[in-house]
Amino acid sequence: MGEVSVGLMGPLSGDPVIDELIGDDALVAAMVEVEAALARASAHIGVLPAEAAAVITRSLARVHVDAADLGRRSVAGGNPVVPLVGTLLDALPPTARPWLHYGATSQDILDTAITLTAARAVDVLSTRSFEIARRTARLADAHRDTLMVARTLGQQALPTTFGAKAAGWAAGLLSTGRRLAEIRRDRLAVQLGGAAGTLAVFGADGLQVMAALADELGLVDPRLPWHTERSRVHELAAALAASTAAAGKIATDVILLAQGEVGEVREGGGPGHGGSSAMPQKRNPATSVLVRAAAMQAPGAVATVISAGMPEHERGFGPWHAEWRPLRELVHLAGGAVARIGEAIDHLEVDTERMRANLDAALPGVMAESLASRLAPGLGRRDAQALAAKALAAGDWRRTILDDAGMDIDPGTLESALDPIAYLGSCGQIVDRVLGEAQRAEEDLR
Amino acid sequence: MGEVSVGLMGPLSGDPVIDELIGDDALVAAMVEVEAALARASAHIGVLPAEAAAVITRSLARVHVDAADLGRRSVAGGNPVVPLVGTLLDALPPTARPWLHYGATSQDILDTAITLTAARAVDVLSTRSFEIARRTARLADAHRDTLMVARTLGQQALPTTFGAKAAGWAAGLLSTGRRLAEIRRDRLAVQLGGAAGTLAVFGADGLQVMAALADELGLVDPRLPWHTERSRVHELAAALAASTAAAGKIATDVILLAQGEVGEVREGGGPGHGGSSAMPQKRNPATSVLVRAAAMQAPGAVATVISAGMPEHERGFGPWHAEWRPLRELVHLAGGAVARIGEAIDHLEVDTERMRANLDAALPGVMAESLASRLAPGLGRRDAQALAAKALAAGDWRRTILDDAGMDIDPGTLESALDPIAYLGSCGQIVDRVLGEAQRAEEDLR
Amino acid sequence: MGEVSVGLMGPLSGDPVIDELIGDDALVAAMVEVEAALARASAHIGVLPAEAAAVITRSLARVHVDAADLGRRSVAGGNPVVPLVGTLLDALPPTARPWLHYGATSQDILDTAITLTAARAVDVLSTRSFEIARRTARLADAHRDTLMVARTLGQQALPTTFGAKAAGWAAGLLSTGRRLAEIRRDRLAVQLGGAAGTLAVFGADGLQVMAALADELGLVDPRLPWHTERSRVHELAAALAASTAAAGKIATDVILLAQGEVGEVREGGGPGHGGSSAMPQKRNPATSVLVRAAAMQAPGAVATVISAGMPEHERGFGPWHAEWRPLRELVHLAGGAVARIGEAIDHLEVDTERMRANLDAALPGVMAESLASRLAPGLGRRDAQALAAKALAAGDWRRTILDDAGMDIDPGTLESALDPIAYLGSCGQIVDRVLGEAQRAEEDLR
Amino acid sequence: MGEVSVGLMGPLSGDPVIDELIGDDALVAAMVEVEAALARASAHIGVLPAEAAAVITRSLARVHVDAADLGRRSVAGGNPVVPLVGTLLDALPPTARPWLHYGATSQDILDTAITLTAARAVDVLSTRSFEIARRTARLADAHRDTLMVARTLGQQALPTTFGAKAAGWAAGLLSTGRRLAEIRRDRLAVQLGGAAGTLAVFGADGLQVMAALADELGLVDPRLPWHTERSRVHELAAALAASTAAAGKIATDVILLAQGEVGEVREGGGPGHGGSSAMPQKRNPATSVLVRAAAMQAPGAVATVISAGMPEHERGFGPWHAEWRPLRELVHLAGGAVARIGEAIDHLEVDTERMRANLDAALPGVMAESLASRLAPGLGRRDAQALAAKALAAGDWRRTILDDAGMDIDPGTLESALDPIAYLGSCGQIVDRVLGEAQRAEEDLR
Repeated sequence: MGEVSVGLMGPLSGDPVIDELIGDDALVAAMVEVEAALARASAHIGVLPAEAAAVITRSLARVHVDAADLGRRSVAGGNPVVPLVGTLLDALPPTARPWLHYGATSQDILDTAITLTAARAVDVLSTRSFEIARRTARLADAHRDTLMVARTLGQQALPTTFGAKAAGWAAGLLSTGRRLAEIRRDRLAVQLGGAAGTLAVFGADGLQVMAALADELGLVDPRLPWHTERSRVHELAAALAASTAAAGKIATDVILLAQGEVGEVREGGGPGHGGSSAMPQKRNPATSVLVRAAAMQAPGAVATVISAGMPEHERGFGPWHAEWRPLRELVHLAGGAVARIGEAIDHLEVDTERMRANLDAALPGVMAESLASRLAPGLGRRDAQALAAKALAAGDWRRTILDDAGMDIDPGTLESALDPIAYLGSCGQIVDRVLGEAQRAEEDLR
Repeated sequence: MGEVSVGLMGPLSGDPVIDELIGDDALVAAMVEVEAALARASAHIGVLPAEAAAVITRSLARVHVDAADLGRRSVAGGNPVVPLVGTLLDALPPTARPWLHYGATSQDILDTAITLTAARAVDVLSTRSFEIARRTARLADAHRDTLMVARTLGQQALPTTFGAKAAGWAAGLLSTGRRLAEIRRDRLAVQLGGAAGTLAVFGADGLQVMAALADELGLVDPRLPWHTERSRVHELAAALAASTAAAGKIATDVILLAQGEVGEVREGGGPGHGGSSAMPQKRNPATSVLVRAAAMQAPGAVATVISAGMPEHERGFGPWHAEWRPLRELVHLAGGAVARIGEAIDHLEVDTERMRANLDAALPGVMAESLASRLAPGLGRRDAQALAAKALAAGDWRRTILDDAGMDIDPGTLESALDPIAYLGSCGQIVDRVLGEAQRAEEDLR
Repeated sequence: MGEVSVGLMGPLSGDPVIDELIGDDALVAAMVEVEAALARASAHIGVLPAEAAAVITRSLARVHVDAADLGRRSVAGGNPVVPLVGTLLDALPPTARPWLHYGATSQDILDTAITLTAARAVDVLSTRSFEIARRTARLADAHRDTLMVARTLGQQALPTTFGAKAAGWAAGLLSTGRRLAEIRRDRLAVQLGGAAGTLAVFGADGLQVMAALADELGLVDPRLPWHTERSRVHELAAALAASTAAAGKIATDVILLAQGEVGEVREGGGPGHGGSSAMPQKRNPATSVLVRAAAMQAPGAVATVISAGMPEHERGFGPWHAEWRPLRELVHLAGGAVARIGEAIDHLEVDTERMRANLDAALPGVMAESLASRLAPGLGRRDAQALAAKALAAGDWRRTILDDAGMDIDPGTLESALDPIAYLGSCGQIVDRVLGEAQRAEEDLR
Repeated sequence: MGEVSVGLMGPLSGDPVIDELIGDDALVAAMVEVEAALARASAHIGVLPAEAAAVITRSLARVHVDAADLGRRSVAGGNPVVPLVGTLLDALPPTARPWLHYGATSQDILDTAITLTAARAVDVLSTRSFEIARRTARLADAHRDTLMVARTLGQQALPTTFGAKAAGWAAGLLSTGRRLAEIRRDRLAVQLGGAAGTLAVFGADGLQVMAALADELGLVDPRLPWHTERSRVHELAAALAASTAAAGKIATDVILLAQGEVGEVREGGGPGHGGSSAMPQKRNPATSVLVRAAAMQAPGAVATVISAGMPEHERGFGPWHAEWRPLRELVHLAGGAVARIGEAIDHLEVDTERMRANLDAALPGVMAESLASRLAPGLGRRDAQALAAKALAAGDWRRTILDDAGMDIDPGTLESALDPIAYLGSCGQIVDRVLGEAQRAEEDLR
């Protein structure tokens, strides 16, 4: 939105392409577009003269409305459609004027226009999610066999591969991209209800006009007005926040892996990236930090949108107005987070040697589960765990086991129990599955 | 959950049936059930002896675990699975012990058990949503022609029917019930990843065990572990909140319609319902108030769940643990809100005479849009609106119009422009559509 | 902020004066101001040459920085201070350059500048809260004896006065204005810590420079750097949201009282205020609706700010960045809500006859508590309540009571029990107290 | 609360002492206590017979009310006070019955009882915050000279001391403990307004009864009823969340420092602490993880409480009821987080050698700012930074500087510029200040 794509802080949380699609200018243009499409849809059903619809379409195409000025003129009526209709009337020849905004109310125009801009942003956002997922899946594939240590609750736990880790990243982008695409296809609908949701002005033809309007705009026909049934908006808000979180998860891992003491990845990017004015030696994971910051802002915005889900009577006295900013903010945040995590993935510098070295330094401790699982059938679960822990903490674990276990153990079995490569489970298959899904997701787009 | 279904405040926000399904006892039972199902699934794939799985299944079926005691023993390890596994081991014969919890980690058990209890609650919740939607749609149908005034921004606006209003209520229950059913079918999945999401203990068979576990429990096979990909949880949380909001919307309207000065509906219910200790004459809309209170608590819980969507590495140091309470709270709140709004609908007393009287008192003012839309083709939109407003504020609106309009107007047209029955647009069709959808939704359940 | 004061939607939620104080231009100017003040403070303590401080102060006073351009240049480094320092260096003669930003880090400048802009906005906000409280208290005083019905849980309950109701409104503005003033005085502090919160560059003099900087800027000396101790920010965010809620409470009551069926108040305002494009007869309480919409957006923003309260190590990787937008948004929302509720109060049209008529229509039912409290000493609480309810529902309540009560009751007592004027309790004293407090609050400002 | 202190998950987020103070039994007891105190306060002012107050006090002291049963009986009336009054009436001799609950409404009793239980919990919470702050400050003092590396945005930045870091932890506990103590003293007030906030039943004496009730209960006299002015509740909720965040900040640092690759601290605790069922070698920072999880849940609850801040008319139709659970939840979360972080601090194992080794490994890079600040007066800020970065990345930094700088530099100055001990700024003073403040805070309690 104009509010966020420009300005001091907007560029830090958003993406220029998405911000332009949902920006103030785009929203004003969409409102005008909806007024024109409504005239054509109504003409198509026969409730207004075809000639009037043609004149309205032609005339409105030439109107320029300044968003900031419109904003200032919106206060008296409480929403921007009231002054906008006035401005548009002035642009029409007298004969067409009665047919502008015919049968509609402010909420019809604004809900549909916000949906239209959101739909365009979501198209880009889901496509990008799939593209970045695909690139992330390829990164995973390239590191199918790159050993590293897995970490749980902040502690080194077991061996894994960087491939499996990156596959998890891609999976989040796929799931959330898919959900956005689903919502786009099934839920982003035109709103048309007239002043009280009864479509009164259209007589018996209102629901047909609504369907025709959906056709005109490439949005869903909702079959019922949704002026006070806001589950579409809730689903969109939640999906945008989930998308932001999926990017945020990647950013979190990147930052943790980039810690000096870990050193397994670095954010790439040209000179100046991640610079600090005070500390010339630093290269901050600035991109990932901004992604995390965006992701931290999304949940509160979702709460606001859902809290507006109980509008009073046929149009609430507050809730509808409370949706506008946080909903657009969520598009802005998701747009910024997804675009930015794509950059981070594309320029990620992976230090496979450091990964291996960190794993080696955590050996043999991180093989304790592996060892215990080999000992368990003979010793029972608890004794096996105790012995594994004791042996791996001792200097010579083989001796400790052979002495303590009191059972015949094949030394080769023991050796293999401590080999990280032999303890990767489904890591490879996970990479394969994600790669396959990412390819399908991208193909489905074509 | 035990925490909410019992206790002082729980009964005010929840429903006993749902609370029992997601309560502490149910969750502990589900954790035990998951451990047994995992053994069978593993045996099915051949990673553990069939006999051990049978013994585990039989033995665990006889175990009773006290939830509160388990809670107290959970603190040292940070989650209830750690002490639960200890308790279950004690219930097994030694030969079966190595195979309990085989290949699993605490998160696998708890995520799957929470999902399982949530799935059972969601089954009830979506079914109830459809049933209540059906009853609400029937109420709408019974009031297909009951005239009332529509209100926007708190002001009387236009005529509508109580049928159309109630149809809007039903539509919200249908949409949110449908979304819950979708999530149940497509997204409520088992989790299996082992200690770090690699399924290491299962060698190459982990993903097959995961699929078999899904079969055992009637949950979705996620195809990939989701220990750090939490979009399923986000979707569930948001859908539960949306469901609560759909109930809250109805409750809001009921309360506003029940205001003394409006008096169009009253909450029914037996003696004692809505009583006040101080004011013996009052009958409070206590059910609707509790529904609104529940709906006001849901958005914050969704924010918490989504804010936990960026877990660090292979298991976060906080986020996973932060999901448990708000997610179960959302099931509790949605359960209470939906059940309770069903009661409100079933006992709603509708005063159709008062509806008509309130509409009549607002005439002819609320026909201004109607009148203006008839005048507009001749006068232009602005003059028509100005004249309609002036005329309806004057004593004799017919005279004012005929004097001022300066055009030929058919008196019959004018009369019909002020007849609310002639200005109901799609009200009837909206009722029909909702009724049809509600019937289909219920039939789909069978 | 630039993002909100301009643009399409900003004017609907904000106030131009406050928005300018916290807008982008103001924030950039404050950052420049902080850099200059830091140079002077450092010179004062003797850590940099007085001449350099003078040159820096003079030179920076002439610099103009375009906020939008700075925003775009901020992305690489992740915050606007990095490029700003570059721009300011260019404006300095070479000899002064080493002393710009000396000892500081980006967070020092941005935290202090945000605090400085917030302090100026809070000064206006708390003053306005007191002024509006005073005007509201005067409104209360003017309606000290205006009878109306009190409503609880949406139902008519007891008599009260419009004075007491408006006194409650004023009380909310006073409490929240006072809390803002307190925070301004005690908690809005400069931040100075250097790159890691150790004030390393200043040697042993850092804490003295911090104190001197506070003096320069008229902010609090925090005595300790607060780069990772964010309770000041939490308190400010919560107080701004509480302020918004206090305005929202008034707006809610105004809207409910303005319902057509209630009709006890109307929003005033000139022609065009609250107009609807579709319904020429309507006068919407548009101001109050916008206030409620703002108040509905504040809680989510507070959640975001507090969720950022656990920054990692010496500067978090996300939380700090996540504070900026929601914190400024809260200033914007509180600014808009308070300013706008002041307008609503100033133009409120109170229909005292309608208030009295609505009360009369609810008589004698709403006197049931009064009646029961007179009967209770003789009959016991329960029987008194039952009898009061029965009597007031009957046609002739005097007869019912005299027949049923089986006790000697003075008819005069009974009559007075049903007189609303005799049942106003502390209404008058409440008005007096609020008026007194509002006067003191305003006087304290001088 | 009963809901949280018992049960499966409650012990993981809460603390038994605090949970008992705000639990269901405590809340029911407090409601009874408030009824008795109200009788005495009323008698004191002369509005009811002293003998009745004495009888009520004695009789209620003997009543036992089962919280869960009361909960179930609360549904019809929508709050627990309605059935509680019934139960208490049964426990009174007939003569005293008229005077029970005299002049009060449900909200008076429940608001005051919640405040009373919260006040007792806050007393413990603030005292504990100060005690733990004192112990943390002592830890800081013990490590006044323990060198370690500071980290910003996840990257090693500069030298600091563990003392300064721990001082920052203590500062957070002090600030938030102080705020809680302030709220306890100034804002936790009795509520008394009667059915509609007019204190009608008390005639002209209501405000005096309110003051006397405050005296009886050791709470603040609010001077005005606050049934619809909820800023007290907002302040309490926000302060509890801030307290949780202060604990969460410490937990975050502990977890990050305890990472295997960092290894600077470990959570102590006896055997079994932080155990993993799957990975016998691990020692998880389980305490800190639970603290972080609690802190992640608080912001959403604050949002809910504040969103309830616009109650309709004289008692809202939802908002008041929506406050109860999240407010008590916040006490629970803060109680658990603070208690638990105290344990973490008390058992923290600090590895000073590892701290030093990690710093050494980051040398000389982390001295770049120090070096640049020495070079800047001669070279200008930018060239100095560039040269410092270049030199420290090169093998022989002394040579690089001497070759490149083209200026006379004293080698001793250069050496000292790279000595971390000489670059600690105010670290020591920060420790001293915190220690002093912590001592004063504890002394103020006595």
